[in-house]
Amino acid sequence: MDRFSEIKRSAQAMLPELVTVRRDLHKYAETGWLEMRTSSLVARRLTDLGYKVLVGEDVCLKEARMGVPEETVLEANYARAQAQGGDPAFLPFTRGGMTGVIGILECGEGPTVAMRFDIDALGVFEAEEAEHRPSAEGFASVNRGFMHACGHDGHTAIGLGVAKILMDMKDRLHGTVKLIFQPAEEGVRGANSIVEKGHLDGVDYFLGNHISGRSSKTGDGLIIPGIYSSLATTKFDVVYRGKAAHAGAAPHLGKNALLAAASAVVNLYAIPRHGEGASLINVGTLHAGSGRNVVADEAKMELEIRGANTQINEYMTDYAIKILENTAQMFGCSCEIKKMGAAEALCSDKPLADRVAGICHELDLSPVELNVNGGSEDISYMMNRVTSQGGQSVFFRTLTHMAGPGHSRTYDFDEQVLSNAVQVFCAMTLELLG
Amino acid sequence: MDRFSEIKRSAQAMLPELVTVRRDLHKYAETGWLEMRTSSLVARRLTDLGYKVLVGEDVCLKEARMGVPEETVLEANYARAQAQGGDPAFLPFTRGGMTGVIGILECGEGPTVAMRFDIDALGVFEAEEAEHRPSAEGFASVNRGFMHACGHDGHTAIGLGVAKILMDMKDRLHGTVKLIFQPAEEGVRGANSIVEKGHLDGVDYFLGNHISGRSSKTGDGLIIPGIYSSLATTKFDVVYRGKAAHAGAAPHLGKNALLAAASAVVNLYAIPRHGEGASLINVGTLHAGSGRNVVADEAKMELEIRGANTQINEYMTDYAIKILENTAQMFGCSCEIKKMGAAEALCSDKPLADRVAGICHELDLSPVELNVNGGSEDISYMMNRVTSQGGQSVFFRTLTHMAGPGHSRTYDFDEQVLSNAVQVFCAMTLELLG
Amino acid sequence: MDRFSEIKRSAQAMLPELVTVRRDLHKYAETGWLEMRTSSLVARRLTDLGYKVLVGEDVCLKEARMGVPEETVLEANYARAQAQGGDPAFLPFTRGGMTGVIGILECGEGPTVAMRFDIDALGVFEAEEAEHRPSAEGFASVNRGFMHACGHDGHTAIGLGVAKILMDMKDRLHGTVKLIFQPAEEGVRGANSIVEKGHLDGVDYFLGNHISGRSSKTGDGLIIPGIYSSLATTKFDVVYRGKAAHAGAAPHLGKNALLAAASAVVNLYAIPRHGEGASLINVGTLHAGSGRNVVADEAKMELEIRGANTQINEYMTDYAIKILENTAQMFGCSCEIKKMGAAEALCSDKPLADRVAGICHELDLSPVELNVNGGSEDISYMMNRVTSQGGQSVFFRTLTHMAGPGHSRTYDFDEQVLSNAVQVFCAMTLELLG
Amino acid sequence: MDRFSEIKRSAQAMLPELVTVRRDLHKYAETGWLEMRTSSLVARRLTDLGYKVLVGEDVCLKEARMGVPEETVLEANYARAQAQGGDPAFLPFTRGGMTGVIGILECGEGPTVAMRFDIDALGVFEAEEAEHRPSAEGFASVNRGFMHACGHDGHTAIGLGVAKILMDMKDRLHGTVKLIFQPAEEGVRGANSIVEKGHLDGVDYFLGNHISGRSSKTGDGLIIPGIYSSLATTKFDVVYRGKAAHAGAAPHLGKNALLAAASAVVNLYAIPRHGEGASLINVGTLHAGSGRNVVADEAKMELEIRGANTQINEYMTDYAIKILENTAQMFGCSCEIKKMGAAEALCSDKPLADRVAGICHELDLSPVELNVNGGSEDISYMMNRVTSQGGQSVFFRTLTHMAGPGHSRTYDFDEQVLSNAVQVFCAMTLELLG
Repeated sequence: MDRFSEIKRSAQAMLPELVTVRRDLHKYAETGWLEMRTSSLVARRLTDLGYKVLVGEDVCLKEARMGVPEETVLEANYARAQAQGGDPAFLPFTRGGMTGVIGILECGEGPTVAMRFDIDALGVFEAEEAEHRPSAEGFASVNRGFMHACGHDGHTAIGLGVAKILMDMKDRLHGTVKLIFQPAEEGVRGANSIVEKGHLDGVDYFLGNHISGRSSKTGDGLIIPGIYSSLATTKFDVVYRGKAAHAGAAPHLGKNALLAAASAVVNLYAIPRHGEGASLINVGTLHAGSGRNVVADEAKMELEIRGANTQINEYMTDYAIKILENTAQMFGCSCEIKKMGAAEALCSDKPLADRVAGICHELDLSPVELNVNGGSEDISYMMNRVTSQGGQSVFFRTLTHMAGPGHSRTYDFDEQVLSNAVQVFCAMTLELLG
Repeated sequence: MDRFSEIKRSAQAMLPELVTVRRDLHKYAETGWLEMRTSSLVARRLTDLGYKVLVGEDVCLKEARMGVPEETVLEANYARAQAQGGDPAFLPFTRGGMTGVIGILECGEGPTVAMRFDIDALGVFEAEEAEHRPSAEGFASVNRGFMHACGHDGHTAIGLGVAKILMDMKDRLHGTVKLIFQPAEEGVRGANSIVEKGHLDGVDYFLGNHISGRSSKTGDGLIIPGIYSSLATTKFDVVYRGKAAHAGAAPHLGKNALLAAASAVVNLYAIPRHGEGASLINVGTLHAGSGRNVVADEAKMELEIRGANTQINEYMTDYAIKILENTAQMFGCSCEIKKMGAAEALCSDKPLADRVAGICHELDLSPVELNVNGGSEDISYMMNRVTSQGGQSVFFRTLTHMAGPGHSRTYDFDEQVLSNAVQVFCAMTLELLG
Repeated sequence: MDRFSEIKRSAQAMLPELVTVRRDLHKYAETGWLEMRTSSLVARRLTDLGYKVLVGEDVCLKEARMGVPEETVLEANYARAQAQGGDPAFLPFTRGGMTGVIGILECGEGPTVAMRFDIDALGVFEAEEAEHRPSAEGFASVNRGFMHACGHDGHTAIGLGVAKILMDMKDRLHGTVKLIFQPAEEGVRGANSIVEKGHLDGVDYFLGNHISGRSSKTGDGLIIPGIYSSLATTKFDVVYRGKAAHAGAAPHLGKNALLAAASAVVNLYAIPRHGEGASLINVGTLHAGSGRNVVADEAKMELEIRGANTQINEYMTDYAIKILENTAQMFGCSCEIKKMGAAEALCSDKPLADRVAGICHELDLSPVELNVNGGSEDISYMMNRVTSQGGQSVFFRTLTHMAGPGHSRTYDFDEQVLSNAVQVFCAMTLELLG
Repeated sequence: MDRFSEIKRSAQAMLPELVTVRRDLHKYAETGWLEMRTSSLVARRLTDLGYKVLVGEDVCLKEARMGVPEETVLEANYARAQAQGGDPAFLPFTRGGMTGVIGILECGEGPTVAMRFDIDALGVFEAEEAEHRPSAEGFASVNRGFMHACGHDGHTAIGLGVAKILMDMKDRLHGTVKLIFQPAEEGVRGANSIVEKGHLDGVDYFLGNHISGRSSKTGDGLIIPGIYSSLATTKFDVVYRGKAAHAGAAPHLGKNALLAAASAVVNLYAIPRHGEGASLINVGTLHAGSGRNVVADEAKMELEIRGANTQINEYMTDYAIKILENTAQMFGCSCEIKKMGAAEALCSDKPLADRVAGICHELDLSPVELNVNGGSEDISYMMNRVTSQGGQSVFFRTLTHMAGPGHSRTYDFDEQVLSNAVQVFCAMTLELLG
């Protein structure tokens, strides 16, 4: 444990600072592509620490971003970010939703280690009750309807903590460190645009982390690097447009978008199962029609597809598109399909996972192997790009006690976990570049 | 023309007064069950004229009203009606949506003649452009989102004009006159509750009227008593309630209300046609689900059914209810079906229609026979009750030039029609009770 | 009655002959496109009478025939017709399903009167009970599964009776008589191919007849020329072809034709109603799949569409084809649609119908006006072609007492009706060409 | 290898006899519940060897049999079995479909070992080409439409071979041997009725086997005892009964069974996926309707459900029944659901599988571990009953070269495999009871 003792001490010492940063971000929560204040502050901090910093159009490939809000929303939030203390030097680069930051530390010859920290909040109204600590202690979100209810405020704070320690120990490193602060992970909208920009090319090792709740069987504050796998997914928004008509006098003159959408929904769920693994679809919302006695001229659907692997996800996606397009056509409606997000299936590389497990052991954090299913994460795009080029990837979970479930209005976590995660990232970096 | 010359002169003379009343009602438009100000003013006027007046719970059978707004809406509009000059003596009777007024004039032995004047507005935002006369001349609706876009302001003014003239000539009448100011005709929600209260029992002759647009072939200001027929109809609001679940991890734990609703919609449209006449259904709106990755736990539909006659309408209604209930059940959802409105098929009695045509001729108004289809009117409940008891009914249209189509934000009509309609109602009353 | 007395006497005198012909045809019943024996005997008789006779490819336009049986069936029935006494001179022309005969009688200058007599039987197994007169009296069908259960044996006999009388009185006629013996009326498959061959071009008057059951209100043996109207219709056979796969191991490798067909069926019934009249669809049969645990690779449907008029029928047909094609496509199946029959809407011309009514009066047959709906007849193609060129058409029913309902195995009729029908056809011809 | 050397030598020596038995059974193939000749010959042989033999109603619980053919089929096949040399002493017990045989060998104190050999053929027409060895060598099925295309002829021969060797070595055994010759495995119809009769109660070890094709990676004639798992399944026949009506005149008087079935099919495929493993459904066949212009009054479906485990299979089954019943109800049809077969999920016990693997090694047969999915086997009922009472079960595959795929008309296998399988059964018995 000698080799990591300094990392451990530093990470524990910086806990108050990690908490301060996390609470500031929590208070000014920003959702996907609106993380303008957050991005500007991260860029400022990395610059001050001495990193080479990429911002604005150098981070995400502009046209590869998915689910970007409308212009008016982007502009309103730019004004908000200015008013809430965004860094004036970096804020302009984020205008129009060009959020995200990459910090690079070059330490001579050696492999490249990249780490991903996601920075966006969720569209959730935060609890105002006194039992909710952020409310009680004054750091609840002031941006009504935006809330860090999935721990990305913590992830960002961890990333900045890691940045500090690695800079301090840069003389012991041989190679390159790349810290990626990713926007718009919620809805799996942002990661691929960073991959498409080429930032994962040439990366040898890739590390990702998510704060997660501990169960009764796992101790408080422990870290669990697991071989975590999740489903591939694609998210679509669909609009059917038909033609209104009086339902009593002339239904034959209408093009019934509601009927078309209903027929599509039933057939979407009826897509034959894939025999080789999970093949899921959900039409989560459907809104259609303007009045009881009018043939509905518009129907909107939000849907998502998931597959045990990328191939199954594509089978479902292709089938769904055929159903959506043909059903619209047979009812005389137009069909607009917009991709709102996507993630590939994800699987950590066993050798790298084993090294994380070993490190946990050395750090006195109890490692536990996990094989969790059902969720989706667009970090998968990053991991798969690295793996496809011969590198290795791992995605692990840092366990903590939680006050409410993820994505809920009462979500909160024990901040001790911040220091633990910083230790794992830094120790792994030393392991790989030391 | 001798016998009607006084009626004709009086009706023409009162045109300015009819216009004033109509414009006041237009300005303070009130939708179904919220016609509190309107009802109080009608009751005041009838009382002042010397009618026996029924208000509040004496008009509509409380529990037979359909599509009554929620309590908070009722209360807010009661306050609004107070603020907008409702008559303080009669307003309290309307609280809670007990709107509508009946004026009775008893003139000794003889038959009973009842007339229906509907008083409610539509949920339409009125045009604000200068070309729209109500806006230009200052009587556009001040109640945003409520608009008299179907002429019921005119119908009410006509009813009060008729009340004045009949009272003036009461010595020439032998029998009873019943003037029914009906709430909530839009959505066919009100008429049946008046019928259920018994007000049509014992009526020998029943007259109804609707202001309608003239076509190029029919002159301005003419009256057309036609044998008008319309479809029977039933309106339902349906709520499916299921159970939310994570669409990726545990779709089997959900009860998918959106899928159930979609399946129901397709099957509703697939109800086998009736071989004996029009059998229509329309699901006008469908709103379901809360988020893309959540199994939808609620779906709401607004739908309507129509049939060429009451029997066909019942065939469709029974089938639809079976589909709605069984589909909910098979997807594990609950099903709440609420009747929001209903009308029977409607057909004027030929002998009475012929008498109206004769009267028009005497009044120098060009009568035209009509056979119009496709719409629905809950005056049908009143007509059918009268007919089923051996009486006669007629529903006619008073033609006028229109500025915009019915139910549109630019609707307006040539107010000359008001005087014409008053003449027909009064002359027919004299014909029947003279 | 002077002018028709000879016709009346002749028709009554030939009743035994009409009965003999009818019973011979009944015994050797032949279904659509297989009326080879029948056609050859009709051609022989018309030739012997002195008519100019068209047979084989001169009657129906070969490629416009619908629903023609397969080659092997045609050949087998050709052999059967030979064995059952088909006329050797004319039989060869019918080979391959080129059935139908036209007899022409030219009587100098004057208009052209065409008459249609349909000659085919149904695919019904005739009753063998003693109460069934054809069985009791030895003229039940010897062709098992083929039966004249709709009176076309009678129609053919009537046509030959008419041919005899008209030839006898040809000196009193001025113009042209065209007797059309139409194949394949059942399934509405034959008439249009005669129209397409041009035989209705230049026809001034067109007469058609169907033997029908009398009700209690109409006397036995009477003739009812009515303004009969029926629905337009189109008949399709549809085959979906997909791909089989093991339902447990690899459902995703299949293309499920059964699922596609089921989805199409539901959507076909859900085609929005036409607001202007009856719009019907029926998928009468559906056969799909080869085994429980195999993804079905084929589905076959027999369906029909009907509309109150040709335009509505087209609305339904276009919609149905879109649904059938798009649904197949979205499930990865091919779609073959074959038109098996069609008829247009049909309506007699009032002036000609009135003349038929007058004639009935003169003949002491009680005429009754009828307006019957729901069925379909491909004589409509002939009538509409004549009308569209300025001619007049009428379709009437000759009433009789019936032993069983049409299309049933116990169908039979009172043969007195044969003579009555002959009278009407001949008297009308004299009326028009006399 | 000392302890098994006698078994190995005997099994190899009896290969010609095994081949003879297999070919005789192949030639007189009998499908489920019709294995009357087969059962009588097995019972004769076991009796002659000295086993205690159970037949007729002592084998399967009569009312627990699924998918039993109709009485006329049973009788016809009883006559056939008599004509084809069924043993006259035992044949009467099989009448009415009471097939199946159990042979018991009691060797004093000790555990009970049960083995399952399934005996039924498939409804397949056997290939007649010369390349098909059974045809070339004269043992192709003489029962047209019945064929041993899944190796059960081999299984039966193996069972009789095992019976012979175990009887020869009974002095070395301590405990009880139970040889179960199961009828109606195809369609998973027979096993449960044996379990319900109680024959698996008190069994300590249970062995089952299936002949399977070797791949290029596994040598010819080898035996692979694997931990084989398969899906739980339920098979249903469903009949919807509605009411016929004329599709043009009175569709509203019909109860459309075809439409109801189509709607059910789409909804069955749309049953929400289970999040915890495979959840499959297949409607393999659908036959509905009698004619194009008649509302279909009957629809028949054959369907099957599968689940990764019994719980998921039940989730699907419960859902399917709700859909089937409610859909029938909403279209006014009756619904008859008949269970035609069922199997539970199946998994070998690791300790017993390891012992089989060890035995293979000793026998010089190369063992390979397998984890195959997708099929279903009703041996699962037997295995699960044994396991649930504290016993152990294993199901293994004996590999061989195959001429055509399972269930195909060209199926055949290298008969060397028969001897190999006999060795494994006998060696395992000695291992367990020695």
